[in-house]
Amino acid sequence: MSYFIPALDRQLATALRSKIDQKTKPLGALGQLEALALQIGQVQATLTPQLCKPTMLVFAADHGIANAGVSAYPQAVTEQMVLNFLRGGAAINVFCRTNGLDLRVVDAGVNADFAGVAGLINRKVAMGSANMTEQPAMTAAQCEQAVAHGAALAQGLADEGCNVLGLGEMGIANTSSAALLTHIYTGLPLADCVGRGTGLDDAGLARKLQILSDVVGLHGKSADALETVRCYGGLEIAMMAGAMLGAAQRGMLVLVDGFIASAAYLAASAMQPALRDYAVFSHCSDEHGHRKLLNHLNAHPLLDLGLRLGEGTGAALAYPLLVAAVAFLNEMATFESAGVSEHLQA
Amino acid sequence: MSYFIPALDRQLATALRSKIDQKTKPLGALGQLEALALQIGQVQATLTPQLCKPTMLVFAADHGIANAGVSAYPQAVTEQMVLNFLRGGAAINVFCRTNGLDLRVVDAGVNADFAGVAGLINRKVAMGSANMTEQPAMTAAQCEQAVAHGAALAQGLADEGCNVLGLGEMGIANTSSAALLTHIYTGLPLADCVGRGTGLDDAGLARKLQILSDVVGLHGKSADALETVRCYGGLEIAMMAGAMLGAAQRGMLVLVDGFIASAAYLAASAMQPALRDYAVFSHCSDEHGHRKLLNHLNAHPLLDLGLRLGEGTGAALAYPLLVAAVAFLNEMATFESAGVSEHLQA
Repeated sequence: MSYFIPALDRQLATALRSKIDQKTKPLGALGQLEALALQIGQVQATLTPQLCKPTMLVFAADHGIANAGVSAYPQAVTEQMVLNFLRGGAAINVFCRTNGLDLRVVDAGVNADFAGVAGLINRKVAMGSANMTEQPAMTAAQCEQAVAHGAALAQGLADEGCNVLGLGEMGIANTSSAALLTHIYTGLPLADCVGRGTGLDDAGLARKLQILSDVVGLHGKSADALETVRCYGGLEIAMMAGAMLGAAQRGMLVLVDGFIASAAYLAASAMQPALRDYAVFSHCSDEHGHRKLLNHLNAHPLLDLGLRLGEGTGAALAYPLLVAAVAFLNEMATFESAGVSEHLQA
Repeated sequence: MSYFIPALDRQLATALRSKIDQKTKPLGALGQLEALALQIGQVQATLTPQLCKPTMLVFAADHGIANAGVSAYPQAVTEQMVLNFLRGGAAINVFCRTNGLDLRVVDAGVNADFAGVAGLINRKVAMGSANMTEQPAMTAAQCEQAVAHGAALAQGLADEGCNVLGLGEMGIANTSSAALLTHIYTGLPLADCVGRGTGLDDAGLARKLQILSDVVGLHGKSADALETVRCYGGLEIAMMAGAMLGAAQRGMLVLVDGFIASAAYLAASAMQPALRDYAVFSHCSDEHGHRKLLNHLNAHPLLDLGLRLGEGTGAALAYPLLVAAVAFLNEMATFESAGVSEHLQA
């Protein structure tokens, strides 16, 4: 497998900066939207970028470690929420509808039989990952297959004309994987990475930290990015990482959601650091480790609304800001065209 | 003039909270969007709120103090930007278009003759406010007229069926008024309230602070809310405050933009504290005093993107989050309707 992502050509940055600075506003007055417009222009290698067929891929999978008592919800909720997605009743359905994103739901490895269920993209690698307290989450073959499926899905969307891809997930217990991946890829202390997930109390949180600490002791730390995903990830996380790689390979913008999606980003960017150029960090989640992860990356997320839901909800909510960034770049008048004075006082 | 705003009936809060908590998500997982949905439901006194005819009113006026050297731009830019608004080329035009808000531009007191200019709402009270370094910004009659015009404009929009009103402004030197109003209404030190506006350098900032400090010495501090606006405000600020009062009187949501709009909010809420229930703080501006103003109010703005443009841009950019809040409240499935387990482990 090769997921090589070329670094962006920086040549266009100067022209984009100049275009932004000629708009009828004080220099820099649109703050992060200016950085976003600059990034989107560079990713698309044009002074007039367009967002086409924005799509949200939600990857669902189960986690063997759910049975170790690291989550406040039973594993069956993963299957139930997938069905909720397919019926249009979840938060991600609502936000994709209101903000104009096409939503596709992928079974990456849910521990349920969805035979006969319409509307689900079947890329099931296994009936959930293995229990990390006993063995690595995936075999090498499973992990590679998940990454490959994700990359192929993103590339298929590129073939359909999509150039901006949001990535979300559903998987009971997947904050455990995200915490472990964050710990290992960033070097942050494990306690900084472990949070309450969907609602653990203090005792549950302490128990989760102990369990995950033991898991790290069991599998150790590999310098190999894919081996780390194999041991500590999940099928939806591996597939999401693959989708990020496939998307960036094809020049798509990658809209990263919350803690779990950001952990998948860590995995993918450990494989291909140039992914960073294509990634937009949509929000800072309320899940404990996410702010620390983003700070580690020196990433400045667009939203900070105390969300902790996953599903891609933060990415879908941030999407209108991408639309606004592209629109101001393309549509705002210049000082010259509008006859507005841009001269500062001496 | 009476702008009495009744406090909201809190009875509905419990039912709204219960409706939110039955949605298929962990308790509180939508963070600030949940608080927003709760607020909108209360303002509209319904479990099924709707946002109708969202409108952005942009008030423009000139400020006599611009000639005292407190701004990096010449006063003529106010007129030029009004014409830019009317031609659709400014940032606020772009963001209202992308986010589905109707934009209306009001001449509250620009120092220019717009006779024959189509599309501008003429509520000109004067050719700009007076130079505060010499006399109060407005006469009592001007200030009252501006507030009354603003209230009537908002009420007219309510009559058209609008129930969510964004408020923006344009006026060279109006961060000076906003700083003074913030200083007097909040008691924050003047130096905490004075910033670079559209781009002052260090020397310009020091000069602005000295000038404004002298202005406070000249006019003093009144305990009367309207007298404070009269001395230190501007025609667009007084009119915006009136629009907030008129909007809240009619049960509209009031979407507050950046530093200047927030200063108008301080004025309006000093007159009618119940305005707070109707106000949504859209963003935290990069202009120096705004974060301190919001902290003083214990307000949690929706966006924090380093914007410092005014015009209502932050409010327009935040509007999709209101749409999302209402949509999740109305459209998301419940645990029961979706057959999703909500039981936490024992």
